[in-house]
Amino acid sequence: MQLRVPGPTPCPDDVLQSMTRQMVDHRGAEFMDLAQRVTRKLKGIFQTQGDILTLTASGTGGLEAAVVNTLSPGDKVLSVSCGVFGDRFATVAEKYGAEVVRLRFEWGKAADPDQVHRMLQSHMDIKAVLVTHNETSTGVTNDLAPICRMVKEFDKLLLVDAVSSLGAIDLPTDEWSCDVVISASQKGWMAPPGLAMVSVSQRAWEAERSATMPRFYFDLNKAKAFLDKGQTPWTPAVPLFYALDVALDGMNVEGLPNIFARHSRIASMTREGVKRFGLSLFADEDYASNVVTAVKTPEGMNVKELRKLLKEEHGIVLAGGQQKLSGHIFRIAHLGLVNEADMEQVLTGLSLALPKLGFSPDKTL
Amino acid sequence: MQLRVPGPTPCPDDVLQSMTRQMVDHRGAEFMDLAQRVTRKLKGIFQTQGDILTLTASGTGGLEAAVVNTLSPGDKVLSVSCGVFGDRFATVAEKYGAEVVRLRFEWGKAADPDQVHRMLQSHMDIKAVLVTHNETSTGVTNDLAPICRMVKEFDKLLLVDAVSSLGAIDLPTDEWSCDVVISASQKGWMAPPGLAMVSVSQRAWEAERSATMPRFYFDLNKAKAFLDKGQTPWTPAVPLFYALDVALDGMNVEGLPNIFARHSRIASMTREGVKRFGLSLFADEDYASNVVTAVKTPEGMNVKELRKLLKEEHGIVLAGGQQKLSGHIFRIAHLGLVNEADMEQVLTGLSLALPKLGFSPDKTL
Repeated sequence: MQLRVPGPTPCPDDVLQSMTRQMVDHRGAEFMDLAQRVTRKLKGIFQTQGDILTLTASGTGGLEAAVVNTLSPGDKVLSVSCGVFGDRFATVAEKYGAEVVRLRFEWGKAADPDQVHRMLQSHMDIKAVLVTHNETSTGVTNDLAPICRMVKEFDKLLLVDAVSSLGAIDLPTDEWSCDVVISASQKGWMAPPGLAMVSVSQRAWEAERSATMPRFYFDLNKAKAFLDKGQTPWTPAVPLFYALDVALDGMNVEGLPNIFARHSRIASMTREGVKRFGLSLFADEDYASNVVTAVKTPEGMNVKELRKLLKEEHGIVLAGGQQKLSGHIFRIAHLGLVNEADMEQVLTGLSLALPKLGFSPDKTL
Repeated sequence: MQLRVPGPTPCPDDVLQSMTRQMVDHRGAEFMDLAQRVTRKLKGIFQTQGDILTLTASGTGGLEAAVVNTLSPGDKVLSVSCGVFGDRFATVAEKYGAEVVRLRFEWGKAADPDQVHRMLQSHMDIKAVLVTHNETSTGVTNDLAPICRMVKEFDKLLLVDAVSSLGAIDLPTDEWSCDVVISASQKGWMAPPGLAMVSVSQRAWEAERSATMPRFYFDLNKAKAFLDKGQTPWTPAVPLFYALDVALDGMNVEGLPNIFARHSRIASMTREGVKRFGLSLFADEDYASNVVTAVKTPEGMNVKELRKLLKEEHGIVLAGGQQKLSGHIFRIAHLGLVNEADMEQVLTGLSLALPKLGFSPDKTL
């Protein structure tokens, strides 16, 4: 099976096998070693000296933790969004009472740092900026560095949704002064879903001290106090810690620069392959994501049928479009455990499936 | 290893092995079947026709979900607590702005239904009652049936923490008119931690419609809407669903009455064994829990040393006391995957370890 949706991504065998290990006491020495070892390795991939808390939750739980631990009801925040996940981050903040100024970019385009600058200039009372690094719903990776610089120039708190980018696309947390960065185990990490990893800068801890949004399960201060003794406040998903531990070893063997280069290479290969078929990319190619490629549905084709055919005849699982993009795009993920041979298989499958649904690949194929 | 802490509990081999299965698309047909099958089986163990939502979170996340989906800030709630977990449930409600009337019982004693009755009579404006079925911190199981009858007599919403009881101690959700019942996968279910299961009655859904506490990750209405199409709103911990699915099959093979009887039998055996040593039980024996036995630390003994010795020399992992009970008790869990031979081993280990720390087992041994 070629599982090519943007999470859950496939796990290596040793990661899956690690979960057959029996449970341990989460207040005992084995878990202490495990939690501290995983945290140390996470810091390498996050490129941070700050704290990292690992929560038993999916990425959305991590977004909620970022918001409720740093903000108070009534705080004005700027949401920089170019898709479903940017909108979700903003909605979390709104649900907890923040006043959200939504800076929306056309889906398929990246956020424009100049517009972010103008918003920060015209809303001096903004406390924090929420931004998505990689927008999975449209296949766009925002140019995060200049946005970070700008947010810091205006001395604002910077919360970054890096759920689908971290460990696959370069994001030097400390160098770019990101205050809270959120990722999730089922994306670039090659581990199963169920853990959200959240980095917290000193500045974010300062914000935490005065933040009044209600929180209990996602209380990061409590998570930090327990991590200091190698524990979590609530019972952790032990097998997922086993899995992440092994997955991180795999990442360290490959090395971050090689991981980034592999994702870049396979993304190019995917885009070129798709274009050779005469299909069109949905995302602005200057900001096309290295972890997921969104492809416009050919005129008149039913995406559900295409996905069904690919799955049943070729064992290839692709994602459809979300919300208003449903039916209009399909998405090929190349995130985490993926190599050139995998993507060859996907492209071959597509080249065979498309004509069966009435689309003739371009003659140049 | 005899892992005898009240969660994580040991998992059967087939449950552990199930997690080596590769990830699947959580928006696809396989996960749909899995989610619906697991939900169907959960309803049997919960003894409910109502809804059950399975959240990627530990039990505490389930407690939070129960509170924030049914209450509004300012709502008056009655907390019936006889230990750490009862207090925690109350604190969750307080953090989100409820006005909590705390009815506290001495640790080691059970909640007195008459006192619950008096509180309900003197606070007619109470909207909901929070009660813990099995208080793991003290080894007490509350007599839930009369409390439920009383809460319903006063027509209040009834939220039950059954994290450590469900699937081990009888709790007929519908028959006892429980509105929200919370459990967690690492307890009686013989599955790993990371999933919270929450049942929701029609009455709880009515409360949900007007409840204004903020919620996003734990939004049960959204969870229900997605479950109706065999999905979860956010990426679920897929391997834990695999595990719970297999664990539920094991429970159904044994059958609920047999499971309850086994827990009852092994609990009696544990209590008798401990008393034969001349040790004292911490909990009121009339309400002693069938899933965990709290034992008073013999005068002058260091619990940490006892636990260390048991672990290192006998491979037995017991729990200490929590909060003000730290040092004063140790706890032997007999929850989930446990049989007489396991408990024989634990008792034998204790009989060998205790004298080494200066305690002479009673002559009657």
